[in-house]
Amino acid sequence: MSVRDETWQSIAEAVGPRTDGEDARQDRAARVWWSCVIEPGDRIGGALIRARGAVEAAEIVRREPAPAELAQLIDVSPAEARAALARWSPRIVHGAGTDAVDRARRHRVVVIVPGDAAWPVQLHDLGDHAPPCLWVRGDVGRLRAAAPAVALVGARAATSYGEHVAGELAAGLAQSGTTVVSGAAYGIDGAAHRAALSSGGTTFAYLAGGCDRSYPTGHSDLLDRIAVGGAVLSEVPCGAAPTKWRFLQRNRLIAAATDATVVVEAGLRSGSLNTAGHAAALGRPLGAVPGPVTSAASAGTHRLLREFDAVCITGAPDIRELLGGEAESDPRAPTAGDADRTRVLDALSERTAWPTSAVAARTGMALGEVEAVLGTLLLEGRVEPAGDGWRRRRG
Amino acid sequence: MSVRDETWQSIAEAVGPRTDGEDARQDRAARVWWSCVIEPGDRIGGALIRARGAVEAAEIVRREPAPAELAQLIDVSPAEARAALARWSPRIVHGAGTDAVDRARRHRVVVIVPGDAAWPVQLHDLGDHAPPCLWVRGDVGRLRAAAPAVALVGARAATSYGEHVAGELAAGLAQSGTTVVSGAAYGIDGAAHRAALSSGGTTFAYLAGGCDRSYPTGHSDLLDRIAVGGAVLSEVPCGAAPTKWRFLQRNRLIAAATDATVVVEAGLRSGSLNTAGHAAALGRPLGAVPGPVTSAASAGTHRLLREFDAVCITGAPDIRELLGGEAESDPRAPTAGDADRTRVLDALSERTAWPTSAVAARTGMALGEVEAVLGTLLLEGRVEPAGDGWRRRRG
Repeated sequence: MSVRDETWQSIAEAVGPRTDGEDARQDRAARVWWSCVIEPGDRIGGALIRARGAVEAAEIVRREPAPAELAQLIDVSPAEARAALARWSPRIVHGAGTDAVDRARRHRVVVIVPGDAAWPVQLHDLGDHAPPCLWVRGDVGRLRAAAPAVALVGARAATSYGEHVAGELAAGLAQSGTTVVSGAAYGIDGAAHRAALSSGGTTFAYLAGGCDRSYPTGHSDLLDRIAVGGAVLSEVPCGAAPTKWRFLQRNRLIAAATDATVVVEAGLRSGSLNTAGHAAALGRPLGAVPGPVTSAASAGTHRLLREFDAVCITGAPDIRELLGGEAESDPRAPTAGDADRTRVLDALSERTAWPTSAVAARTGMALGEVEAVLGTLLLEGRVEPAGDGWRRRRG
Repeated sequence: MSVRDETWQSIAEAVGPRTDGEDARQDRAARVWWSCVIEPGDRIGGALIRARGAVEAAEIVRREPAPAELAQLIDVSPAEARAALARWSPRIVHGAGTDAVDRARRHRVVVIVPGDAAWPVQLHDLGDHAPPCLWVRGDVGRLRAAAPAVALVGARAATSYGEHVAGELAAGLAQSGTTVVSGAAYGIDGAAHRAALSSGGTTFAYLAGGCDRSYPTGHSDLLDRIAVGGAVLSEVPCGAAPTKWRFLQRNRLIAAATDATVVVEAGLRSGSLNTAGHAAALGRPLGAVPGPVTSAASAGTHRLLREFDAVCITGAPDIRELLGGEAESDPRAPTAGDADRTRVLDALSERTAWPTSAVAARTGMALGEVEAVLGTLLLEGRVEPAGDGWRRRRG
């Protein structure tokens, strides 16, 4: 490996005018260089950048260190260091960084780096797996607004039920100012983006390939629309192909860049389960939308509910609750409201048991209504059967 | 209140020939008497029977104790004791017990009591709320066989989806020798009973009224069929009407007499949520079948999944797992099988990261298959991304 003569300065000039301080410009340029050298999620590269900063990390690599030297710097095995240097070497090509920036500029794609106001702060949770920079097509200003963001993901092989629910959820989230994040795939992803746009909301699409490549091509118009009031993002430079590996790593970005992940519809082999896995690994809240148990297209979400403690999501209010907001009363659900519960609890005593008929008389509610509320309160452990009637539980 | 002249002896003679010991005969007769005097779930009556035995408990009540005396015997407040004596008094009618036994005999209904081989042992968990006896129409021998029993319940206002799933679950349980227990209502209950019968399984129906009353009347034939190889049971004597209170208490019996309760389909106001509440209160495993979130008929089961930690049930194997059996591989689910998982885990290392393509090459599996398995393993915390590939997690 010879030291190539591409310098941060040449990339930094390509990145844009000197508005940051010089150190920040150099850091940005070095991160562009790293983005061209490593594959998404490269832990060794990430560790080196975290340990030494992007500029010094790049300079270390460019002077062709011995594997043992690299290993010592970041506390990995010499074998891991050797493998990393071997996979980076062919990518350290003269002009790659400046070419990437030129190409990005032609496609109106800009670079954001950690420390920028637009950088999704949640990505810090990725640690050594964080991307060195992100390439963005669209409204960078929208990335700055610190709105809560939810990943709505699911299978490309979606049913009309799944697409309908994805649309309802995205519209509900958009209307309450929550950003809808997805992967621009056919099926659930597309339905989520489209509904967010129709509802006047903000939506971001993370791609596995470069932002200049509309993938899938059938979603070229959709991606253009997303870029108008939202953003299309990628951690690989323009021109990079969407490989299988990059799809899996793109899924980790979607899970990491959002405050919760909801799988809307997914068969047992859907890639969206991989996104769910990343969300779970990051400790992010995970939701899953149920469907008919007779539908193979919901088998994956049912598995998330059964085995991975995903929260059952039936509407946008459930997702807002998942984000840690207050439990909301769902206007779609004509359930025993707070008022009815209070009336029934007030009509009961902790000491004396009251029959259902007496509770109905005291509350002015119909017997069936009282029974429904009592059933709910029993479920919640607020009341207990006693004698011929019901009693409020102590405490 | 005067001491009535009906004696245990007269009821005991009506109960049947002297095959038990005399004490057991007297106990059985006293429990019949109690069954005619108290409403289902009467905690004061239950506590007195548990403290003094059914015979002595009845003799105490028949000699018209002061409320304070009764209160002291079972550690309740004098007000509760007074209320209990007041509600029992009008029921202590000459001949009620013998009439109930005569009526039962005409309808081929027999009495079982705690200690009988046919008594559902799970009912002991009800404590003071346990019924003094059960009236049974059908095959008492089937009650003796200690097969696992599952309550399949749900709304009368069921959809064709709900009835279909209830039938599939009941057939699956019946085929593996699990008894299907329900409440003989229209909708989910009926579908569960019918499918269990069609599959040659055993099914029990608990009624809110007397066993001689076919309720609902449209299920008269179904109840007759249930009684042939299974049983129709009630805690109230023949002739007793199915009141609202008795429905709620019947639900507690269904939850208590089974090893797990599964709500198949239920709106937010379905009485089956009351059964679920009893199951939860008793610490019984609780399952709920999801459905389309667009269906109001599944809103209640989704609430159980969301808020009450019900287990998501998608088929009979899930219910058998709920019963504490081994996790079964579901033949309906062509998921990443154990063999694929083993192959992928074997191809990975704890120290060196392998790219997906290398894992595919080493396992001879397709890239997409490897990715699906890796997604699952990531979800389970068995693997982690590392460098450009994947690594097995330690431990």
